[in-house]
Amino acid sequence: MVDLKGDERLDYLLAEENMRIIQSPTVFAFSLDAVLLADFTYVPIKRGKVLDLCTGNGVVPLLISRRSKAKITGVEIQERLYDMAVRNIQINHLEDQLEVVHGDLKEMPKRYGNNKFDVVTVNPPYFKTPNKREQNQNDYLTIARHEISCTLEDVVLACSKLVRSGGKVSMVHRPGRLVEIITLFKKYKLEPKRMRFVHPKIGKEANMVLVEGVRDGGADLKLLPPLYAFDDNGTYSKELEEILYGRAT
Amino acid sequence: MVDLKGDERLDYLLAEENMRIIQSPTVFAFSLDAVLLADFTYVPIKRGKVLDLCTGNGVVPLLISRRSKAKITGVEIQERLYDMAVRNIQINHLEDQLEVVHGDLKEMPKRYGNNKFDVVTVNPPYFKTPNKREQNQNDYLTIARHEISCTLEDVVLACSKLVRSGGKVSMVHRPGRLVEIITLFKKYKLEPKRMRFVHPKIGKEANMVLVEGVRDGGADLKLLPPLYAFDDNGTYSKELEEILYGRAT
Repeated sequence: MVDLKGDERLDYLLAEENMRIIQSPTVFAFSLDAVLLADFTYVPIKRGKVLDLCTGNGVVPLLISRRSKAKITGVEIQERLYDMAVRNIQINHLEDQLEVVHGDLKEMPKRYGNNKFDVVTVNPPYFKTPNKREQNQNDYLTIARHEISCTLEDVVLACSKLVRSGGKVSMVHRPGRLVEIITLFKKYKLEPKRMRFVHPKIGKEANMVLVEGVRDGGADLKLLPPLYAFDDNGTYSKELEEILYGRAT
Repeated sequence: MVDLKGDERLDYLLAEENMRIIQSPTVFAFSLDAVLLADFTYVPIKRGKVLDLCTGNGVVPLLISRRSKAKITGVEIQERLYDMAVRNIQINHLEDQLEVVHGDLKEMPKRYGNNKFDVVTVNPPYFKTPNKREQNQNDYLTIARHEISCTLEDVVLACSKLVRSGGKVSMVHRPGRLVEIITLFKKYKLEPKRMRFVHPKIGKEANMVLVEGVRDGGADLKLLPPLYAFDDNGTYSKELEEILYGRAT
């Protein structure tokens, strides 16, 4: 009973046979970044409220729901993606735990009020401005990848307002933007507490960074062991396999 | 013809038979941090001016002189360490290339003027305030390790003034202070460009960070592959061995 539209596919979400996800290569397909963000994020196990900004087709809420009973709300500005996220919640029968809101993250503090969530996660657009070649090729992907609807500062400000004092904000981004991220986190009272770099393989520069800030927290940053995505032979590293295919628990 | 004082020892500097260093366990012995700072720092090979603040017994200038013809000046506030640095230059016959100044880093911009060095290196005190137990045990080590004579902001400000526009500042510190370091680098126009974390071994949190900023540089941070100090069996890692015992060149 799945309503697929256009070039959408119904994929397995990771290797879990009982969790499926609708995505489309031309609109939005979830990436390793979202998987690692969900894995990196500390969430309350039994209760609490989690907000996922820039949720896309809802992959981060779906992943977090595997290990937490918290209520999780996704926010997505693009209607087509919002619609995919709604159906992803339905096909996985998670309507009691997950919901998705169609709207602009900048409006969410007005909608929910400040200090409302225990955890806010976000996989924001990575690039400042699209180059000409990309700009008109595909609006869905351009908006998801570039700071057209929101800047990094908009994102951090919204996170800072929405999370409660002592609550956590976790973000995935590119290392090239890390200085800006730390500067904005400090500006909006999100103290960076945990950081993890992802390197494509041993000996390579990092191409992804995961950052967790605590609202009104004291200064004390932990730098976690790096994650390597691939082994030398090009296959997933053991740790990434565990994240993708599930840890023995 | 070496003039050793008190409990000083004449040690080999790394594994180089032709380079020796005077140090004392109760006053100052160079650490892995200084070795890794020297290794991390980009220096002009044939000419240029390098300044090493908090130079201690001069280990960073000695190490950098192995691979650069730049003129290197060390600055040390503690007279006993300054005196060791002077003799370390003498016993290694490096008077033509290295010099050491006895003074307070905060006074150096007045002494040298702004915009004067191509590279500034610093291995500053790591800790904010000494605890009571440490405070009176050993003044030499307390001043070297704690922010008594200078704060992190004093250090970054001095670096920023002394380095030329486009020149590099490299620092070694603890990851727990990274947010402050980045904030201060930005405040004083040192754009973080390269960063490397040192983990004691695979799977452990980082316990050291190396940061390079470029004066007036544009934003673009590279996150280098991490360095692991030890293998699982507790011996130096291959990369650290290469740094300590020299690379095949």
